[in-house]
Amino acid sequence: MSKDHTEQILRKRMEENRYVQLLGLELLELREGYARGRIPYKKELVNPYGSVHGGCLYSLADIVAGNAACMSGYYVTTVSGTLNYLRPAAGTEYVTCEAAALHLGSHLAVFEVKLTDDKGNLLDSGEFSFFLLNQKVCNSSASMN
Amino acid sequence: MSKDHTEQILRKRMEENRYVQLLGLELLELREGYARGRIPYKKELVNPYGSVHGGCLYSLADIVAGNAACMSGYYVTTVSGTLNYLRPAAGTEYVTCEAAALHLGSHLAVFEVKLTDDKGNLLDSGEFSFFLLNQKVCNSSASMN
Amino acid sequence: MSKDHTEQILRKRMEENRYVQLLGLELLELREGYARGRIPYKKELVNPYGSVHGGCLYSLADIVAGNAACMSGYYVTTVSGTLNYLRPAAGTEYVTCEAAALHLGSHLAVFEVKLTDDKGNLLDSGEFSFFLLNQKVCNSSASMN
Amino acid sequence: MSKDHTEQILRKRMEENRYVQLLGLELLELREGYARGRIPYKKELVNPYGSVHGGCLYSLADIVAGNAACMSGYYVTTVSGTLNYLRPAAGTEYVTCEAAALHLGSHLAVFEVKLTDDKGNLLDSGEFSFFLLNQKVCNSSASMN
Repeated sequence: MSKDHTEQILRKRMEENRYVQLLGLELLELREGYARGRIPYKKELVNPYGSVHGGCLYSLADIVAGNAACMSGYYVTTVSGTLNYLRPAAGTEYVTCEAAALHLGSHLAVFEVKLTDDKGNLLDSGEFSFFLLNQKVCNSSASMN
Repeated sequence: MSKDHTEQILRKRMEENRYVQLLGLELLELREGYARGRIPYKKELVNPYGSVHGGCLYSLADIVAGNAACMSGYYVTTVSGTLNYLRPAAGTEYVTCEAAALHLGSHLAVFEVKLTDDKGNLLDSGEFSFFLLNQKVCNSSASMN
Repeated sequence: MSKDHTEQILRKRMEENRYVQLLGLELLELREGYARGRIPYKKELVNPYGSVHGGCLYSLADIVAGNAACMSGYYVTTVSGTLNYLRPAAGTEYVTCEAAALHLGSHLAVFEVKLTDDKGNLLDSGEFSFFLLNQKVCNSSASMN
Repeated sequence: MSKDHTEQILRKRMEENRYVQLLGLELLELREGYARGRIPYKKELVNPYGSVHGGCLYSLADIVAGNAACMSGYYVTTVSGTLNYLRPAAGTEYVTCEAAALHLGSHLAVFEVKLTDDKGNLLDSGEFSFFLLNQKVCNSSASMN
């Protein structure tokens, strides 16, 4: 299956997913080993301190990196994720996440994630690892969407 | 300020928070160094594989542990969080998180979190660290709620 | 192969390993999903602040948990490890580490580790994940020792 | 105190430290927010699989990043460290670690660490956070060395 088709299936799954919709998450770029996405700063995602919830930022990172991992052609499951919170996610229209592969193995894929505000300030940084499932993205389009 | 009053303010902030509402998060127990909460398994929080999104599970852990840390009397900010995903969060009505203090320092508080399903199976495990802000919970009730 | 034989091979490998000798690491207990070991407080392992180096504490945790993971019958490689430092490792004759399995899967094993001083105070806490290699412990005794 | 003087004190402490000597750790570059160091591949540091022990790699990262954090002028203590192991550290004369600041706050400093072999292949990646102590590097030269 072509990478284009894989991307198409992954994007469709994203659009249909309720939690992705709640976050308002947009996938801006998606290729093997790299993805970029963003969530808006909006009142539904803000903690009592006025900045985006740490859990929303982590969700953004997990989903963006997970999609980049799925561009291998296989679905993945998150093994573990770590996020370091450096600056509050406030005073910005969007929080953007870049996920870049540190390693793409046959069983495990590891990504680093960097979250930035509109001005490019680094807000959060972390690493996620994913386990590649036996299920191909191409075979799942009918059954899983 | 009494611990009861602190708890009351924290619970009020939780109830009013939009993201907490989106998750359907309930705080079942809250005291200094320990808290327990849960989110329901519901379609808004489920990934395309049919299990609760890793980001929702992480959000549950972060919010439950963060509230336990705030029972110190000071607001906190998450420094870092790590979550290991052990089993898919599916086939359960709720995912419950227990957060217990590993260390309560004057600047930093560290918690371990354990997420379980209705049968008590361990789904996820991790550790979160929080930095205690200079702002007391008691003084913030008017301005922050 | 019996668990006793596996344990015997693992212990022999430990005894012969130079870094284990440098640390003075002793394996006190070893079974599937659980292990306990310790290192002495000694000047070779102490940082300029007078407490055991964080890297030595992490090494203790990694080696103790890794051996517990190998009791599955398969050699393992560390995927990732996180350690939270709670109190300085000083004023103690030994630092003892307990590693207990959070999950033993067919590909991945996840352990929590707790490091304590002589009085049982919790010094460090963390989680390690291991990938099970295709190589059985029993087949390796000749070639790897 | 000048940065040069701080560097001089930190380097002296390193040279005198026994565990640093055991590792054969050399600090190649040291400035505020950045440091680079290396350890040799040698039999004292190698695990039964023939690659450098995960704990030695972690120690390298912790010590290199910790020294970069101390270039703030204040001694630091490691709060937490995470390391993802991507490829075995073998077939190389040295393992080199670069530590670069993600954030330098008044209380906390967070670094990313990248470990590479002689050919520049990425072996390990992680993040460390440090808490800045009240003790200045300049005042400690007499008492701590």
